[in-house]
Amino acid sequence: MTSLCPTGVPTPATFVIVRRLVRNLNAMAAFARKSGIALRPHAKSHKCVEIANMQIDAGAKGMSVATIGEAEILCRRPGSTSTVDDIFISYPLWAADDTVSRLSNLTDRVRLSVGADSAEAVSRLAPLAGRLSVVIEIDSGLRRSGTTPTGAVEVARAVGAANLQLDGVFTFPGHSYLPSGASGAAEDEGRLLDEASSLVEEAGFATIVRSGGSTPSALHTRADQVNELRPGVYVFNDAQQVELGTVSMEDVALMVASTVVSRPAPGRIVLDAGSKVLGPDRPTWSSGHGLLPEWPGARIVGLWEHHAVVELEEDGPLLGETVAVVPNHVCTAVNLVPELLVVDDCRVVDRFVVAARGVNR
Amino acid sequence: MTSLCPTGVPTPATFVIVRRLVRNLNAMAAFARKSGIALRPHAKSHKCVEIANMQIDAGAKGMSVATIGEAEILCRRPGSTSTVDDIFISYPLWAADDTVSRLSNLTDRVRLSVGADSAEAVSRLAPLAGRLSVVIEIDSGLRRSGTTPTGAVEVARAVGAANLQLDGVFTFPGHSYLPSGASGAAEDEGRLLDEASSLVEEAGFATIVRSGGSTPSALHTRADQVNELRPGVYVFNDAQQVELGTVSMEDVALMVASTVVSRPAPGRIVLDAGSKVLGPDRPTWSSGHGLLPEWPGARIVGLWEHHAVVELEEDGPLLGETVAVVPNHVCTAVNLVPELLVVDDCRVVDRFVVAARGVNR
Repeated sequence: MTSLCPTGVPTPATFVIVRRLVRNLNAMAAFARKSGIALRPHAKSHKCVEIANMQIDAGAKGMSVATIGEAEILCRRPGSTSTVDDIFISYPLWAADDTVSRLSNLTDRVRLSVGADSAEAVSRLAPLAGRLSVVIEIDSGLRRSGTTPTGAVEVARAVGAANLQLDGVFTFPGHSYLPSGASGAAEDEGRLLDEASSLVEEAGFATIVRSGGSTPSALHTRADQVNELRPGVYVFNDAQQVELGTVSMEDVALMVASTVVSRPAPGRIVLDAGSKVLGPDRPTWSSGHGLLPEWPGARIVGLWEHHAVVELEEDGPLLGETVAVVPNHVCTAVNLVPELLVVDDCRVVDRFVVAARGVNR
Repeated sequence: MTSLCPTGVPTPATFVIVRRLVRNLNAMAAFARKSGIALRPHAKSHKCVEIANMQIDAGAKGMSVATIGEAEILCRRPGSTSTVDDIFISYPLWAADDTVSRLSNLTDRVRLSVGADSAEAVSRLAPLAGRLSVVIEIDSGLRRSGTTPTGAVEVARAVGAANLQLDGVFTFPGHSYLPSGASGAAEDEGRLLDEASSLVEEAGFATIVRSGGSTPSALHTRADQVNELRPGVYVFNDAQQVELGTVSMEDVALMVASTVVSRPAPGRIVLDAGSKVLGPDRPTWSSGHGLLPEWPGARIVGLWEHHAVVELEEDGPLLGETVAVVPNHVCTAVNLVPELLVVDDCRVVDRFVVAARGVNR
């Protein structure tokens, strides 16, 4: 058993194995390049300027974000080392309060596009005429936000009426987050983006961007129908991706170092990494509340705010030993900590600030 | 339908209805007083100095916390307005790295006790002889950390050997978090604390504290067997407590103001409050990912990081309308935001800083 945790670090501590991070970044960049698809990674998974810059360096066209605040933090601006100059807020924004003024400030710094799935939402962006691009959200089967291909035509007309730039269409094929769901979701994604862009073009609009992509479905992308990808999780991966079969455990770059604080009964240990550092996400199909790469036979059967209860058949780690835990969902785990320890060969070599932590608007 | 959200506030925004908070604080304090049980509320649920002070003012003996960092932030110290001078870290601490020096600093400021469930853990606290108290953790049925009543005797001997003060025994009857689980869990709690303290006393130790309590089980406490309570959630309550039947919706003091950003299909709306502000907790027995007090017929059927998908039979709120959402688990929701808006009569009258946000060690 190889120990994965950095040595001499108080626990719980969230750390990144930097060689795996770089390998994951480069692999997705190479796939996109080879497939002729533009890469616009989603920053919600890492929220770090350092990692966004690495993605741009590896050839990403720009970044995707979920909130205006994430765009404000990750964009090129005075006082920041960011090199990001093209941002897509891939969310159906509803402009209220200070939305328009914040977007307006952003358009002074970067090329900016935002998501929309209704004519009403688009019309509220009219004060940004000539400065803002819109990408129409299509529902490709997730049943979350997004309009139909037919509905996209109406949204396109609102974009034209507001004198905004229409960039194209996008979807999040999130139904790829089911066992064996990835290739079917990629098929739906391609078909729906194709159908929507065709209808919008027939109505007299040029649609350039057909943007899709999630980490599970990325490698199944139909390059003839999709020309931009927005995966987020792939930089780190997580227990969900391992259990979905998207990646192997050796591709997981983010973990939480924890300590065995209790061995209350044979076959049961308690770790000091709970839901306030791992995140409470637990899909119904997962085997537990995270994975222990150093103890592959172990299962996290219970998770409370500061306790992970682990069951194992073997004798397991002793009181005070350090154990690495892979969170189920890395995006919520990253959002719980102010910084990530950057680790190479079990030594802390740097720290990434989670600059957009908790930035929900 | 009464609107609950503060007006004119950008969403998502986590807010506290201050009159309900005060009512909840006073009700639990009155119950404890009437029952002759000391109240030591758990601060992990609110992480705010302001609320800890309100609890002390209402008669709490001291506070419970989960981490050394929470104790450092919530204790009376120069530069803080805190009035807390008695803290119990109700967690089986494993002393490593800087644990002993941090605990030592705390003992200069407050009366400090910590949890332990093994002789090994106790022996590592020996450098704090004469300054630190220990409370032995008993498992009363949750199968998390905690020893057996018999095991408690061995831990007590280690406390004596290390010249630490033995305060008593404690348990967390977390199996109260099941439908109809509360009264059975309270019964287990009383019985096990009684059994453990009897055995420890027979072995020649004085045990004073028999500490239990969770929000669901608190009102079922056996006052003849338990003499201290550590509920946390009761200050705010949450969707879990409503669905467990512990409280009614009118007792819920913390909510998230959200905006309808999409109405993609009849009977389905999307809110901008996702798992990064509500928390992703979802017990298997819950009806959804949170509750909408203003729309009692609605169900949150899907939750992503920045989307809550709501299904309703009625027509529901329109695009751009504000909707209050009650999180499933308030402790993880509070931990996601830097501050809580304090609201009275739909106006923001103050802000509580979530001072111990993300303090996991």
